[in-house]
Amino acid sequence: MKNKNGRSRAKAVVLLSGGLDSATTLYYARARGFSCTCLSFDYGQRHRRELSAARLIAASAGCERRTVKIALPWKGSSLLDENMRLPAFNRRQRPGFQVPNTYVPARNIIFLSFALSCAEAIGARAIFIGANAVDYSGYPDCRPEFYKAFLNVVRTGTKSGKKQPVRILTPLLNMTKAEIVGLGTRLKAPLELTWSCYAGGSKPCGRCDSCFYRRKGFLEAGIDDPAFRGRHS
Amino acid sequence: MKNKNGRSRAKAVVLLSGGLDSATTLYYARARGFSCTCLSFDYGQRHRRELSAARLIAASAGCERRTVKIALPWKGSSLLDENMRLPAFNRRQRPGFQVPNTYVPARNIIFLSFALSCAEAIGARAIFIGANAVDYSGYPDCRPEFYKAFLNVVRTGTKSGKKQPVRILTPLLNMTKAEIVGLGTRLKAPLELTWSCYAGGSKPCGRCDSCFYRRKGFLEAGIDDPAFRGRHS
Repeated sequence: MKNKNGRSRAKAVVLLSGGLDSATTLYYARARGFSCTCLSFDYGQRHRRELSAARLIAASAGCERRTVKIALPWKGSSLLDENMRLPAFNRRQRPGFQVPNTYVPARNIIFLSFALSCAEAIGARAIFIGANAVDYSGYPDCRPEFYKAFLNVVRTGTKSGKKQPVRILTPLLNMTKAEIVGLGTRLKAPLELTWSCYAGGSKPCGRCDSCFYRRKGFLEAGIDDPAFRGRHS
Repeated sequence: MKNKNGRSRAKAVVLLSGGLDSATTLYYARARGFSCTCLSFDYGQRHRRELSAARLIAASAGCERRTVKIALPWKGSSLLDENMRLPAFNRRQRPGFQVPNTYVPARNIIFLSFALSCAEAIGARAIFIGANAVDYSGYPDCRPEFYKAFLNVVRTGTKSGKKQPVRILTPLLNMTKAEIVGLGTRLKAPLELTWSCYAGGSKPCGRCDSCFYRRKGFLEAGIDDPAFRGRHS
């Protein structure tokens, strides 16, 4: 892949769940000139529907997409276990209070590890992840200090090593959800294709954390959620 | 599970590939009083036979074992790609020279991430991994600084967090292979059941790095390799 100056574009791996944040991140990375390989995970999530969204978003961006299939022999999260109750958004469960039961133990650590493996295998020098530590559910693996620590793992534990470590880029980390909606809209990311709801139904439940933050974001950005204009409404 | 004083034994996750080092590590963790859950990975490795060894070793130790199945949509290593030539042990490829093509990008990072997820899901407070940075193939994810960096990921990126981070224990890290053979023998680990060869044949190839270090270990320890007394010879 060449850029407009005829030079090869740098490769990046973009973690693409199929939600609002990861779609915006993909379009951000593309706008920054990277040739993107999207990475999705089929790990037994309740909201497996997000994978169809990821497929459509990657196709819309004209990017290759790979899916890692993982058969996980434990659960420990309401996102994986249909017998656990998926909590409605709860003010007392906001960051600083309590990690909600939708937390999948070490999920972003696992995702980043695979992204790193993929980056080394295909010769990408950057990984983009749409983590956000402002309007989020309080997951520990969304905080800035975690990404700083992970970079040290890249420096010490990979072949690319200290000389040319794969970069971990988190462009949305300190944005509000409204700022993310604004950025995605400016970048013409297909936000109408994104899927945020955790519940696993055919329509967004409107009650879970993820639905709450999505609604909050569009509301505060003063933009109608395009997903509700069309197929999801 | 109770210990001899009637108290519940602390749980640990032990990464068990089925090789000499991981079997010794399992018996070490057990001797330290931990109630161990073994974790193995079916990730498309050429030497898938090691999984049968892991099964027998876990059964011999009386420990539960879980296997994570991963369908990896890239290769980038001769351990995953049958079309790549598996190198014979090469003096010039020893640590400090070059990382051999058996290096699976970010493999131990992926394995540790899953072990961490499992530990959080089952309430284990320690992870044992039989990494070794003395008689090894020069993989970057076997070095002490990597494990130190990973501990910071545990501290910053998990629910157990800074207060009670899951411990990453690497009892073999600074041992020679001969010392590992000695320890495994003293602990009565079933070394005859272990499988080290990378080549994926029905008998050890005797040429790969892993066969080389195993032979070196038994030779320097002055102990006959029990695997060659019986079924593998």
